[in-house]
Amino acid sequence: MAKKDGRKKRKPQETSLRHLLRVPGGERIDLTAYDASATPGGPADKAAGLAATAALAPRLADLQERLYAASTAGDRRRVLLVLQGMDTSGKGGTVKHVIGLFNPSGCRIRAFKAPTPEEQNHPFLWRIMKALPGPGEIGIFDRSHYEDVLIARVRELVPRSRLGRRYEEINLFEKSLADDGVTVVKVFLHISYEEQRSRLLERLDNPEKHWKFNLGDIEERGMWPAYQKAYEIALKRCTTDDAPWYLVPADRKWYRNWAISRLLLEHLEELDPTYPPGNFDVDESRRRLLAT
Amino acid sequence: MAKKDGRKKRKPQETSLRHLLRVPGGERIDLTAYDASATPGGPADKAAGLAATAALAPRLADLQERLYAASTAGDRRRVLLVLQGMDTSGKGGTVKHVIGLFNPSGCRIRAFKAPTPEEQNHPFLWRIMKALPGPGEIGIFDRSHYEDVLIARVRELVPRSRLGRRYEEINLFEKSLADDGVTVVKVFLHISYEEQRSRLLERLDNPEKHWKFNLGDIEERGMWPAYQKAYEIALKRCTTDDAPWYLVPADRKWYRNWAISRLLLEHLEELDPTYPPGNFDVDESRRRLLAT
Repeated sequence: MAKKDGRKKRKPQETSLRHLLRVPGGERIDLTAYDASATPGGPADKAAGLAATAALAPRLADLQERLYAASTAGDRRRVLLVLQGMDTSGKGGTVKHVIGLFNPSGCRIRAFKAPTPEEQNHPFLWRIMKALPGPGEIGIFDRSHYEDVLIARVRELVPRSRLGRRYEEINLFEKSLADDGVTVVKVFLHISYEEQRSRLLERLDNPEKHWKFNLGDIEERGMWPAYQKAYEIALKRCTTDDAPWYLVPADRKWYRNWAISRLLLEHLEELDPTYPPGNFDVDESRRRLLAT
Repeated sequence: MAKKDGRKKRKPQETSLRHLLRVPGGERIDLTAYDASATPGGPADKAAGLAATAALAPRLADLQERLYAASTAGDRRRVLLVLQGMDTSGKGGTVKHVIGLFNPSGCRIRAFKAPTPEEQNHPFLWRIMKALPGPGEIGIFDRSHYEDVLIARVRELVPRSRLGRRYEEINLFEKSLADDGVTVVKVFLHISYEEQRSRLLERLDNPEKHWKFNLGDIEERGMWPAYQKAYEIALKRCTTDDAPWYLVPADRKWYRNWAISRLLLEHLEELDPTYPPGNFDVDESRRRLLAT
């Protein structure tokens, strides 16, 4: 294939963003080896990135509508986007800018906070199960069951033996989702230690952002190495063929938004949902309707 | 007040869209007296309408963020938009085009279909209660508890005596919402009989829209007068100071989107939510952060 027309004719397996960002299985992961300000496979600069993301919007909206339409005829397929990342890594910004490109009626968004007393009375996957998207929907988790092997590990909220079993529980759970028609897209928003400082300072410098800040954020930041380690383990142990992890460098917000839009597009294109045929006689229906 | 600067200095009570579209209490309502293709208070034409709606987007998003931010400091206020109207009146289109202007993470959208067996095992307000927005959120009901006095009346799903009590139950329920900080904005999307025919024909003429059509739609259309009557009664009996009904002429989609955006804006501006102050020492926090 000639390189100059490669953008149009490329084979998805070879040059897709999924391929580029997918966390490889089996290997130990060293997050410090990944440049958080990189833009792999992405547009040349911010202006091009914003334009490219905007250009994806109609295709995303069209595929979403087809996915939803298909569900009305029994297609159980759906998508679940899982967003994880350190404080300020842009989980909320992704929902605003990427999920904002979709029809809100087909999106089921859930932000997971510290478990409520009721949630604590159940296994850690209980609240996750309740928030899953239905057929035809796009589910979005802002944090997820991975908190139960991240903060739970760093803060030692459960015994180490129980923690160890959770990775396998998560893999089996996600496999059951895949078996049920859920395309699971797990995104780790990778920011640098310096970028987090800069974003926290921005919140301090702007009184309209003070509500997003609390002193606990600095304390959590103090445990950065332990969190990075917990992420490395979670990424390694839970990147599977059924539900791979994607590592998205997230220091540049425009790249983050483009990359996640593009990842969703690639998954939706692979699903290739189609409008279902009607189960009625069109001419007869038209005749009856015109008679009213 | 001079007329030419009236647009900027107008008093909300005098010239607000809320005032113009609000269904008056106490009086018998005759829907045939309302022109569904009218554009009361609206822009001059479609192009101006689309531009005006787009121009509202930043203000809506800003007020939504303030509302959400305020909730993190204990402000319980929130908004509930209730959308009702005949088939094809544009409930789904409103969610797509108007609610699409907001940050999806702060929107809690629920489309009510025919009650499930579990829902039927409970009083009609049970499923409504479960779908209410939390503090700081904007809730959107695509259909609502009003179906229980609309289709329930037309199809005689419950004895007339029980139906009669429901209007009062609804008023008390909505009063309890208002008491709890919920701004209830109830919108009746008013389309004409001819416009509905034309929109149903469009669905038949476009195979990509066949999934939105079913034969039952023609049967329901056959009961148009009974539905209009049921709406007239519901609007009359349930337009209250706590939760007034707004009648939005909806034959013109651009006007519908503008009017509902504008109604939401007026209510959000009245709430006037403000960013809460931080509960921390900014300088001390900055110093600690810079030391990391």
